[in-house]
Amino acid sequence: MRLYDYAASGNCFKVRLLLGMLDLDCERVPIDIFAGDTLTCEFAMLNPVRETPVLELDSGERITQSNAILWYLAEGTAWLPDTPLGRAQVAQWLSFEQERVMGGLGGPRFRLLTGRATAEEVEPRLATGREALAILGDQLMARDWVVGAAPSIADLSLFAYVSVAPVEVPGAVAAWLDRVRALPGFLDDFVPYPDNARPGAGSSIY
Amino acid sequence: MRLYDYAASGNCFKVRLLLGMLDLDCERVPIDIFAGDTLTCEFAMLNPVRETPVLELDSGERITQSNAILWYLAEGTAWLPDTPLGRAQVAQWLSFEQERVMGGLGGPRFRLLTGRATAEEVEPRLATGREALAILGDQLMARDWVVGAAPSIADLSLFAYVSVAPVEVPGAVAAWLDRVRALPGFLDDFVPYPDNARPGAGSSIY
Ligand SMILES: N[C@@H](CCC(=O)N[C@@H](CS)C(=O)NCC(=O)O)C(=O)O
Ligand SMILES: N[C@@H](CCC(=O)N[C@@H](CS)C(=O)NCC(=O)O)C(=O)O
Repeated sequence: MRLYDYAASGNCFKVRLLLGMLDLDCERVPIDIFAGDTLTCEFAMLNPVRETPVLELDSGERITQSNAILWYLAEGTAWLPDTPLGRAQVAQWLSFEQERVMGGLGGPRFRLLTGRATAEEVEPRLATGREALAILGDQLMARDWVVGAAPSIADLSLFAYVSVAPVEVPGAVAAWLDRVRALPGFLDDFVPYPDNARPGAGSSIY
Repeated sequence: MRLYDYAASGNCFKVRLLLGMLDLDCERVPIDIFAGDTLTCEFAMLNPVRETPVLELDSGERITQSNAILWYLAEGTAWLPDTPLGRAQVAQWLSFEQERVMGGLGGPRFRLLTGRATAEEVEPRLATGREALAILGDQLMARDWVVGAAPSIADLSLFAYVSVAPVEVPGAVAAWLDRVRALPGFLDDFVPYPDNARPGAGSSIY
């Protein structure tokens, strides 16, 4: 198994988190978005959407989209509930993560830190992110994990961009972040954007 | 089973498509976004994200997010592949659908038709949508269905906003749209935005 991986990407970080918790062997191929690594013909053959992460199986098959990779790795493990309702709830929070957390926190953070947008320009998106944190906080009021009674890939997926939210997080969310950090196998190797993360480089739509 | 459903929503249309194909009994509760139906306290209790569709099970449990609802209804049926790789590929295209098709075609269409944005303002998003259609066209060059050898919820999910794309679709995509339309149980009840779909109403983030 081989992961095409950008160290400063929250979407890649999610996958690394689960790989660590499952203690799986996986070769990592470092991709530097800002050096143009996603803009080559070779990368388009790997993933026409020109995004990391990409998981390449030993069979040569490839899976893109961070949450689909999490789903693949989690099947048959304790990281995915074994009831249809539980799995649907995980799928629901994975969609929420892309729509509201990546879109409302990860996107604005990326645009701010790489000088693509001003604080004023990202404000409408950040409002969505703050609302997402409030909704997540309500969900975590009376429960330890986002779905069911045990940690699932919904927690790991949400953890990535919430753990670096550019706004204050509700208390229930902060406590949950700490619970994720205390899980066996947890390793925080989510690095800040490097100096070459200048405006205009890469293929990102955010 | 009860579906909180907005007739002019592609995300709701996806769910209605699958319900029809599975010939499932489901009560429909019509929601009118532009009459403020998603802005009430009752609706926030149903779905704090204030979006349709919402599926309510007979147990009272609720599932939100169109693709999570599709996943729930499809489990154990022919609409979801029975291999982990096949399911991961479906999950991948469902993420692609939200990120590039809903975001790049459905969003701009909504903003144009409801007078929220000008053609010029939606152009960057539409560029993402055109690229998504090209990628989908490539995927469908040598195959009838998006994943595997049979139609899956990936096809139904993508069908919704691709079938009303505000730009030209590649030939391979047009042929695939016709294949979906020819499936047993197919019913196109996706209605245009009504006259009350004015700028500013509803909770939408698009
Ligand atoms: N929906 C995708 C988003 C992936 C994504 O946005 N990847 C970014 C890094 S976080 C990327 O590789 N962008 C390529 C570029 O900007 O060149 C997923 O969840 O995997
Ligand atoms: N990611 C969600 C998006 C749902 C969504 O955007 N729903 C819209 C209709 S297409 C809605 O109900 N908006 C509520 C409003 O604007 O008040 C899904 O796939 O279900």
